[in-house]
Amino acid sequence: MSAAGRVVALSGGIGGAKLALGLYRELPPDALSVVCNTGDDFRHLGLHVSPDVDTVLYTLAGLANRELGWGRADETWSFMEALERLGGETWFRLGDGDLALHVERTRRLAAGERLGAIMDGVRRRLGVAADVVPASDDPVRTLVHTADGVLPFQEYFVKLACSPVVTRFEFAGADAARPAPGALHALAADGLSALVICPSNPFISVDPMLAIPGLRDALTACRAPVVAVSPIVGGRAVKGPTAKMMRELGLEVSAAGVAAHYGDLIDGFVLDDADAALADTLHVPCLVRPTLMRSDADKRALAAAVLEFAAGLR
Amino acid sequence: MSAAGRVVALSGGIGGAKLALGLYRELPPDALSVVCNTGDDFRHLGLHVSPDVDTVLYTLAGLANRELGWGRADETWSFMEALERLGGETWFRLGDGDLALHVERTRRLAAGERLGAIMDGVRRRLGVAADVVPASDDPVRTLVHTADGVLPFQEYFVKLACSPVVTRFEFAGADAARPAPGALHALAADGLSALVICPSNPFISVDPMLAIPGLRDALTACRAPVVAVSPIVGGRAVKGPTAKMMRELGLEVSAAGVAAHYGDLIDGFVLDDADAALADTLHVPCLVRPTLMRSDADKRALAAAVLEFAAGLR
Repeated sequence: MSAAGRVVALSGGIGGAKLALGLYRELPPDALSVVCNTGDDFRHLGLHVSPDVDTVLYTLAGLANRELGWGRADETWSFMEALERLGGETWFRLGDGDLALHVERTRRLAAGERLGAIMDGVRRRLGVAADVVPASDDPVRTLVHTADGVLPFQEYFVKLACSPVVTRFEFAGADAARPAPGALHALAADGLSALVICPSNPFISVDPMLAIPGLRDALTACRAPVVAVSPIVGGRAVKGPTAKMMRELGLEVSAAGVAAHYGDLIDGFVLDDADAALADTLHVPCLVRPTLMRSDADKRALAAAVLEFAAGLR
Repeated sequence: MSAAGRVVALSGGIGGAKLALGLYRELPPDALSVVCNTGDDFRHLGLHVSPDVDTVLYTLAGLANRELGWGRADETWSFMEALERLGGETWFRLGDGDLALHVERTRRLAAGERLGAIMDGVRRRLGVAADVVPASDDPVRTLVHTADGVLPFQEYFVKLACSPVVTRFEFAGADAARPAPGALHALAADGLSALVICPSNPFISVDPMLAIPGLRDALTACRAPVVAVSPIVGGRAVKGPTAKMMRELGLEVSAAGVAAHYGDLIDGFVLDDADAALADTLHVPCLVRPTLMRSDADKRALAAAVLEFAAGLR
């Protein structure tokens, strides 16, 4: 079952990409636009790495490494082994096949192409019919303010495995960043039937996008219902540091805390069966469903439910 | 048997690296300096590639791919496969492990390090006791003037497989280039007992080095005998386009033609058994030996003969 019209999803990496895949399978192939977080982007080894855009692309293309949750399936690791022998930095792991995307992207950025245009070429090459667009072509960089000082995102996230205690997040460059043309185009499309905030980390995957004034404006101007899916289930994050961050930020570690965080931005909220009791306490209409997406069937089922829920909110 | 004192070898890629390996095995490990051609260096996919320096390093480190004649043994190719799917340039093949060197070199060059300093770090990491130094840290780029126009070296060499007819070579940047400190240091070393021009292509592997005024001056000022080994055997190149180039340039396609090309620069010349008859016709003392290096024993035997020959020329 699919809702009529186009759908825009806002997504970070792994958790968001799962629902994006469900939506992609559930909708007509070209009816989906996924706007991806670029706050995790960084320059590593001289290469421009866009972890969330790539995870979404690889997931929709059927190339994602499901065990790792990032990178490509059937990957080889000769580059990292050789780099280690040369004494290079190995804390951020890049697979051999994955490297092609980073090298090609870096080359084309240096030649003056926009990130969004490059990724659009890549998704066509990978046979992905959905639009996969970065939130912005301009640099937006998540900085993590912690008890140990301010850390670039990947240093906090990968190198230090999220261990420092978070005090707040900063999205450097967001104020001046313009939404990528593809993102604006998607949000302004005629017949947009739903805007889905995927079950990504609100603080480091969704907020860096919402911090771009033009993107937030386009979201609030959008007449389609905005539905968020909770990344917190039974008071715990499905994956990643969402719950740890909420605790450290002094927020209620629950799906209700996530709904409160999104506030007026959302018109509907999807919680897991485990959190059914919270549904009546929230400020927006709720849908209670199994939200853990273990299989592709789970992803499609949740996507279909979200689309139907959104249709009822119009 | 090894000659006393230090030895400097001038080398291009595959053929030169073979003799360099023979010298490395024959001499005390730290008695050899290999000065490598950088005229083939180029920027590809945004990465700084130094084919000859790398081939020598990989060869001395025991990592070279002997089947291909370039790159690393036991290589994987996921990067090239993925790049091809992305529509990237695939005419110049880079293995996954090999990429680590290009990425790391490019990163360190961008950070302001000298090529020679970077490669010195790499050779230490790879456990190579010999000095392996680029002829210059400054860009020297071989341009091939052909009947079809002027071509950047790798375009001529790899993309077009040397098919255009050569009219002359140009070494852009050579006039202004300074020899790398390591190259000057090697040539000025006390007790230098021999300077060996490896059986590399005279026009595209050795001449780009000789075109650097300071390097040529250091060579001619050097009191050690300069001995060249012919890359032409029986009127044919052992490998590569040397014979084809000589023909196109109107030179005699023979070991004698190579000796004439080096002229006064050399104090001795090593020819293959197949060319024994030429020995008496040349302007310098000659040594006639089997010069085809199929096995490591061949490489050592030729290296030992060259060193002994040079010792007799002092």
